[in-house]
Amino acid sequence: MIKSLLSALLVLVAVSSAFGKYIPKSGKRIPQTLSRGWGDQLVWAQTYEEGLYWSRSRNKPLVIIFHLADCPHSAALKKVITEDNDIQKRLDEDFIILNLMYETTDKHLSPDGQYVPRIMFVDPSMTVRADINGRYRNRLYAYEPADLTLLKTNMDAAKKLLKSEL
Amino acid sequence: MIKSLLSALLVLVAVSSAFGKYIPKSGKRIPQTLSRGWGDQLVWAQTYEEGLYWSRSRNKPLVIIFHLADCPHSAALKKVITEDNDIQKRLDEDFIILNLMYETTDKHLSPDGQYVPRIMFVDPSMTVRADINGRYRNRLYAYEPADLTLLKTNMDAAKKLLKSEL
Repeated sequence: MIKSLLSALLVLVAVSSAFGKYIPKSGKRIPQTLSRGWGDQLVWAQTYEEGLYWSRSRNKPLVIIFHLADCPHSAALKKVITEDNDIQKRLDEDFIILNLMYETTDKHLSPDGQYVPRIMFVDPSMTVRADINGRYRNRLYAYEPADLTLLKTNMDAAKKLLKSEL
Repeated sequence: MIKSLLSALLVLVAVSSAFGKYIPKSGKRIPQTLSRGWGDQLVWAQTYEEGLYWSRSRNKPLVIIFHLADCPHSAALKKVITEDNDIQKRLDEDFIILNLMYETTDKHLSPDGQYVPRIMFVDPSMTVRADINGRYRNRLYAYEPADLTLLKTNMDAAKKLLKSEL
């Protein structure tokens, strides 16, 4: 019963929203989200510049998650991060957050290479916290699903802000 | 009747999706979209770096719309651009598109200042097309809702690619 209501409603919605609006030749698309699946309830910065601006003005550290859509390691990390309410809450309340699929021009964000998944912390003083890393010597800023506790410890470390020299 | 079905369904959806997932203290949020209302059916680049990459690899010019959420001129331009199916189709098929609320570090994108709304074209050869402008001498890259025809002419101009000197 609910299924048939649902389909009827979907048809209604599709018909009404399709009326007069541009539809791509390839068919209707689902709008892209800024979260890209890393936490739909969080407020994401769109760009590095935006993230730095928010970080400085709100005095919160910036977390940058580098990932790729078709990378299984990124997908596995995304799953545990979105399902862990404690991490979602911390990201929401204590950090400025940004997820990127393309590298920036700031080489400080790739101290040991441009791999994914990679999590970098940036202090509100605009210092990349290369000192905060995971457990893999060959990929210092990589995290696996089993590393969530270490990630939380590192989030606590990032919250201890550096003193700006300005 | 449909209204009551709709509300029942919304409650169902809300209850099921709320179960167990992180909800901010301030209440559930609508996920942010990359389109930011400039065309939900279009495929937007997230960052300038991403836009440049796509532009080069697909040999399509990049359009960058600089805007602000609380700017009435941006809102007015957004309305006419999203309601014009011809522009939406051209943006979708002939261009790589990016909308930004924060400036990049590339000064070539603000030849006469960092105002909004401002539309810049970038050739796949990575040359900012400062030669393609609107009708206002004091803000060369600004467009008003009445300037849609000029904007389309300018889109045609941007489609005539520069020859790369490489």
